[in-house]
Amino acid sequence: VQTVDIELEAIEKGGYDHFMIKEIFEQPKSVADCLRGRLNAKNGHLHLGGIHDYANKIVNADRIVILACGTSWHAGLVAEYIFEEFCRISVEVEYASEFRYRNPIIGENDVVIAISQSGETADTLAAIDLAKSKGATIFGVCNVVGSSIPRVTHAGSYTHAGPEIGVASTKAFTAQISVLTMMALMIAQKKGTLSESAYRSLLVELETIPEKIAKCLDLNPQIEIISAKFKDAANFLYLGRGYNFPVALEGALKLKEISYIHAEGYPAAEMKHGPIALIDENMPVVFIGTKDSSYEKIVSNIQEVKARKGEVIAIVTEGDTDIAEIADHIIEVPHTHEALMPLVSVIPLQLLSYHIAVMRGCNVDQPRNLAKSVTVE
Amino acid sequence: VQTVDIELEAIEKGGYDHFMIKEIFEQPKSVADCLRGRLNAKNGHLHLGGIHDYANKIVNADRIVILACGTSWHAGLVAEYIFEEFCRISVEVEYASEFRYRNPIIGENDVVIAISQSGETADTLAAIDLAKSKGATIFGVCNVVGSSIPRVTHAGSYTHAGPEIGVASTKAFTAQISVLTMMALMIAQKKGTLSESAYRSLLVELETIPEKIAKCLDLNPQIEIISAKFKDAANFLYLGRGYNFPVALEGALKLKEISYIHAEGYPAAEMKHGPIALIDENMPVVFIGTKDSSYEKIVSNIQEVKARKGEVIAIVTEGDTDIAEIADHIIEVPHTHEALMPLVSVIPLQLLSYHIAVMRGCNVDQPRNLAKSVTVE
Repeated sequence: VQTVDIELEAIEKGGYDHFMIKEIFEQPKSVADCLRGRLNAKNGHLHLGGIHDYANKIVNADRIVILACGTSWHAGLVAEYIFEEFCRISVEVEYASEFRYRNPIIGENDVVIAISQSGETADTLAAIDLAKSKGATIFGVCNVVGSSIPRVTHAGSYTHAGPEIGVASTKAFTAQISVLTMMALMIAQKKGTLSESAYRSLLVELETIPEKIAKCLDLNPQIEIISAKFKDAANFLYLGRGYNFPVALEGALKLKEISYIHAEGYPAAEMKHGPIALIDENMPVVFIGTKDSSYEKIVSNIQEVKARKGEVIAIVTEGDTDIAEIADHIIEVPHTHEALMPLVSVIPLQLLSYHIAVMRGCNVDQPRNLAKSVTVE
Repeated sequence: VQTVDIELEAIEKGGYDHFMIKEIFEQPKSVADCLRGRLNAKNGHLHLGGIHDYANKIVNADRIVILACGTSWHAGLVAEYIFEEFCRISVEVEYASEFRYRNPIIGENDVVIAISQSGETADTLAAIDLAKSKGATIFGVCNVVGSSIPRVTHAGSYTHAGPEIGVASTKAFTAQISVLTMMALMIAQKKGTLSESAYRSLLVELETIPEKIAKCLDLNPQIEIISAKFKDAANFLYLGRGYNFPVALEGALKLKEISYIHAEGYPAAEMKHGPIALIDENMPVVFIGTKDSSYEKIVSNIQEVKARKGEVIAIVTEGDTDIAEIADHIIEVPHTHEALMPLVSVIPLQLLSYHIAVMRGCNVDQPRNLAKSVTVE
């Protein structure tokens, strides 16, 4: 008999140094798991069992209110843009903590979507109770099966991302967006607000996301090299427009959470209304500048930062030449529909924050002061 | 004949070192000018001439969409809370730059309020055009008489704050909130969503705001002393809840604009979802913790920051004892209705940013990289 001396945690990490990097690399699989049995692009099939009985409620909703905190709130911002564009329903994304302490305007014709990885977030739970008491229909988008939120909502869908151990949420975020995108596409089709051809091509695109995430993960060695250059930065700005605006917020939050670098996200156009004053040679600026309807505007924002000697790292679409000429570092990600781009463009930002944090000697899986689930107010 | 050798600019500054501090000190007068002829609390009179003909449009609106950038966007967030609370109309506050490049959901039953000090903000102008083309009724809240925005809107009210020369907006912000508050109270009364007694007492409170601002200005020497302690800080967090959440954003923006310190605002409850990781003995945290419905929650947020050795500056209501015991520095402002508190609580934050910037040798009236009006996209 030979004794194998190996820690349980090491087995659980499956050969990775940290849970966070393991979870980042799991995303091709976790997003595929999330889509599995729900989406079949070839035959135009899309079905989220959990919300099927209530789909008409959303189709006829006056308004959708999304309630969430932290990273889930960023997934909500992505969903806002997707629901408004595809379903033509106006969406309000609220911090659960702010919503619950006001006297919010919400009633029987409103639909609430509550997003929480753990399903236990205290402020989100309390906000759900309040919305429910006012007659709204509540959908939950959670990862942990059998948690509190799924038990108090009228309907919902699990994200099926598997257990997330790293405190900084990564695979839960992409799974949340995947579920919310499927919800929006289902509703848009029922409502007739999306042409059949647009609908079908979005399904096809959505099905390719896991392999596009895998391609982003191939960039890991390049991102590690870039990370080494910036590991000693004291501050960071993250800028994006449109669908990539929430990605900028999420990229900044990741860096903040695990590296303790003060990183802040902004919609790129707001830069001129204040944050541009911060920019000098000591301020790295991450742009999410993939090819989409606001591409030209992002290019000119990058030029403005360069004119002020900021150092620019840009997430761009494969084959980009315009930004490649002006940015200091570019990270090329595969092309997809702009509405699906957050699922792709966030991956390099997760990796960037991971490597910088590791190089700074931070405990990436258990950052100081943070709990995995915020179950107190 | 004696030659008087004095520069025109020095005369214009009226004895102050900078336009910004002159404009901060003008606020008792600029807010009074804004209220003058519109509000008379004694006889319950409130009348905004510019919007009178369209008031029913707002009363019957499905939704109010506020479009703005920068500091005006923060005034919009304050207005969101006020309109929702008093008028029971749901309000969405959008970055003009984000709104204009989407295909926004807006129609004939929606009312748009566009806020811009200069009346020339390019993104806001373009967003107005888009909303107008979709049939929405547009109200303007601008400071510069005869500027572009008032010429393209259906109706509106000037803020009458007088010329604002300092690039960092101060008196325009408080005047914007004053106009928006009067609008909301007018609509609430017409709509019957506010009791007569609540309405009357809010009018009385609003009329006392100029003298409460004056009392805040008396704190200037104390704030200068506090500023000296923090002038070398590299980062700052600003936290508030409810009506004071936008004040936290605005306080952080002021510091960022003129001192180039990386300051970030957050709703206080979101701290636990990420930003708390940044907190250690090198991170000053400004809390806006005046006595209101979220006071107890703010006290516990302050305790959490203190437990992590953050240094706390708190804006509190006169006579506060709970926060006074735990915060490192307190700045006491006069009590008012929580909905009007932003007009009061923002004043110490303007002064704090001014003094810190001056002590750092920054050009406070002409901060690097920033223009007074952002007339390009």
